[in-house]
Amino acid sequence: MIEIIECVPNFSTSDPKAVESILNEIRKTENAFLLDSTFDGYYNRLVVSFVGNRKSVLEAAVNSAFKALELIDMQRHKGQHPRIGAVDVVPFIPIRNVSMEDCVELARKFGETLAKKCGVPVYLYEEAQPKPERKDLDWIREGEYEKLDEMIIKPGREPDFGPAKFVPTAGAAITGARKIMVGFNVNLGTADLKIAKKIAKTLHAQKGGFSNVKAMAAFIPEKNVTQIGMSISDFEKTPLYRVFEMLKVECVRYNAPIIDSEFCGMAPLKTLIDIASYYLKIDNLTEDRVLEIAVQNAIEKGDAFE
Amino acid sequence: MIEIIECVPNFSTSDPKAVESILNEIRKTENAFLLDSTFDGYYNRLVVSFVGNRKSVLEAAVNSAFKALELIDMQRHKGQHPRIGAVDVVPFIPIRNVSMEDCVELARKFGETLAKKCGVPVYLYEEAQPKPERKDLDWIREGEYEKLDEMIIKPGREPDFGPAKFVPTAGAAITGARKIMVGFNVNLGTADLKIAKKIAKTLHAQKGGFSNVKAMAAFIPEKNVTQIGMSISDFEKTPLYRVFEMLKVECVRYNAPIIDSEFCGMAPLKTLIDIASYYLKIDNLTEDRVLEIAVQNAIEKGDAFE
Repeated sequence: MIEIIECVPNFSTSDPKAVESILNEIRKTENAFLLDSTFDGYYNRLVVSFVGNRKSVLEAAVNSAFKALELIDMQRHKGQHPRIGAVDVVPFIPIRNVSMEDCVELARKFGETLAKKCGVPVYLYEEAQPKPERKDLDWIREGEYEKLDEMIIKPGREPDFGPAKFVPTAGAAITGARKIMVGFNVNLGTADLKIAKKIAKTLHAQKGGFSNVKAMAAFIPEKNVTQIGMSISDFEKTPLYRVFEMLKVECVRYNAPIIDSEFCGMAPLKTLIDIASYYLKIDNLTEDRVLEIAVQNAIEKGDAFE
Repeated sequence: MIEIIECVPNFSTSDPKAVESILNEIRKTENAFLLDSTFDGYYNRLVVSFVGNRKSVLEAAVNSAFKALELIDMQRHKGQHPRIGAVDVVPFIPIRNVSMEDCVELARKFGETLAKKCGVPVYLYEEAQPKPERKDLDWIREGEYEKLDEMIIKPGREPDFGPAKFVPTAGAAITGARKIMVGFNVNLGTADLKIAKKIAKTLHAQKGGFSNVKAMAAFIPEKNVTQIGMSISDFEKTPLYRVFEMLKVECVRYNAPIIDSEFCGMAPLKTLIDIASYYLKIDNLTEDRVLEIAVQNAIEKGDAFE
């Protein structure tokens, strides 16, 4: 039985040479397959998606992290996305024939390896973190890289692996296991970051917005516009179309037109089905009624298909 | 290399026993895989989707058609969908590693077999029909079953296979090859068929609507509503969302609210991507950025993946 884990590491760089070197570590790993990579100067952040089995995913995650630690110096890092380290966050996601526990184990192995071989402090988050108060990325990232030297020595904030010590070039790393989530960016036709921040706030769970949603605002100098970056940790409970419709409502209020949008990372099919079902009022659309998926399922059933 | 053909036969019945018997012919064919079947009393029509390789698809198509000819008596058939026979239309659609020419050949074999073994007149349509004026289903179905006895003996209307003779129980059959198309039904909160017909007309290609679109209206007695049934033969050129938005505009005009809608048959992924891209203003979403498709592509690339 084929086992598939997705890994979505976020590295604190947008330098094209560093990006290529990091991606090459994944490309050259046997049985690891790069699905997507996006990086932007304003976030100064590289988000990668790749898949593989337990062995290949761990190998590609470790080797790309080693390369990132070698090439990134956090002392010179500026970016609008919250982060505490060069290897900022590395989640493992069960896709097929693996459990969340398998992914927790991968995260632990990844964290241990990084701490042991590179001396980097590592925090576990989400499903890999047994202590409820430490599960949330926002808690771990409090004060970001800039305050890490003070935060890491506070009682109760010691890392899960590695030294409770500030490492200037690397910062700290975060790893864990989680379900598939949706990352989605919306560009607004306003250069006013204050407005974009107000709109982002209306969506963010901890600020009274939707459960399962984190939202932030950034300014994109190349385009002189602002961007709402959001992630939805449970898009079955809180579908993307609903968050988008609320965003539209707030954009009308502030006269900030929506220019365009994009998935950050991969788009789960369920999200597309939810969008079609909402806007076209379809009440019975399921994944197995999508032609390409049904054909694939038929191929898998038919051993002697040829 | 795995070859996949989809076959979407339309049979003129909604009798549950006949439906089961017809579907069983497909289910019991080795290497043929039933994807979907829908049937409704008001259309009195069964639409089936199945896939297989050239051998299994032809076998399942022939055997299900034989069964339909055995069980359906067109002399007692009433239904709101245009039709000329028990085995009304049987298209073969290239999906993977087969050409349109392969599908034309399948349609010809299917038609020849039906004509030879059952004495049914068979018309070829779309890509399988060399004469341009005979390609269109509407031309072949002119006058429907009820006028077939007069039409079939007219010069230039002789069938492509079988006798130019009216067969009362079977009518005539149509077969051919075509690209993937979208079937989509929208239910309107009005019982007024005249209004639904006016709305359908605005969409229909031959009546001034969208190229590549056929649209019809039907009354659904069980729900006391009307339905717009549409098919889009080239949904890349004429995306579903655009037809749906035009439908909405006309529905506002006639105060006919849209209740709900459904795909008739399978939903092509491209249609869902187009919908998401339009309503959420996404400008760079492609099939390989859909997680499930990308994972599947990775599995196919990775021979030694396990």
